[in-house]
Amino acid sequence: MYLAMNRFTVPVANAAEFEELWLNRESHLQNMEGFVSFHMLKGPEDEGRVLYASHTVWQTEAHFRAWTTSEAFRASHARAGESRPLYEGTPQFEGFQSIQSIDASA
Amino acid sequence: MYLAMNRFTVPVANAAEFEELWLNRESHLQNMEGFVSFHMLKGPEDEGRVLYASHTVWQTEAHFRAWTTSEAFRASHARAGESRPLYEGTPQFEGFQSIQSIDASA
Repeated sequence: MYLAMNRFTVPVANAAEFEELWLNRESHLQNMEGFVSFHMLKGPEDEGRVLYASHTVWQTEAHFRAWTTSEAFRASHARAGESRPLYEGTPQFEGFQSIQSIDASA
Repeated sequence: MYLAMNRFTVPVANAAEFEELWLNRESHLQNMEGFVSFHMLKGPEDEGRVLYASHTVWQTEAHFRAWTTSEAFRASHARAGESRPLYEGTPQFEGFQSIQSIDASA
């Protein structure tokens, strides 16, 4: 599996609006080839800022790369600029390859 | 879902040994109540250091908390000190709550 994470540092005062924006957006992921799952995650709060992370799992990195050059990706991000003032700086992207996997016993 | 991540900054020279240590350790997670999945992830390399992250998904944060106070947890971490020289500083823990979930279409 390949995990694409984008980390957002959001001032506490903007957190509710930031969440609302994500929860109400239109997602284009669901029918992309190789897409496994998406989660919007709320992480720890530190010094008045909340760490959020978008967490998208793909079958392979190649599937993720195909998504980033697709029409659906452009459509998803066309309005991204509107939310910029809600978080500090720029989102921090991190891509991860799984090197070991353990699932719950059946 | 609740995601418990631990981030490790590993000098490139230690990466192979760090991976081997993880891949060969004994895991006690599989039979814990509320355990969903574990992945060891290899992230980006930057300035001679590789970011690794252990990525454990639980049904709820309460299940994760129960794990951290269990006998199995103590057994899993009894030898943790032996690997310390392989990464820089201390692992950085981040716990995340899912606030939105999208799965692939069936």
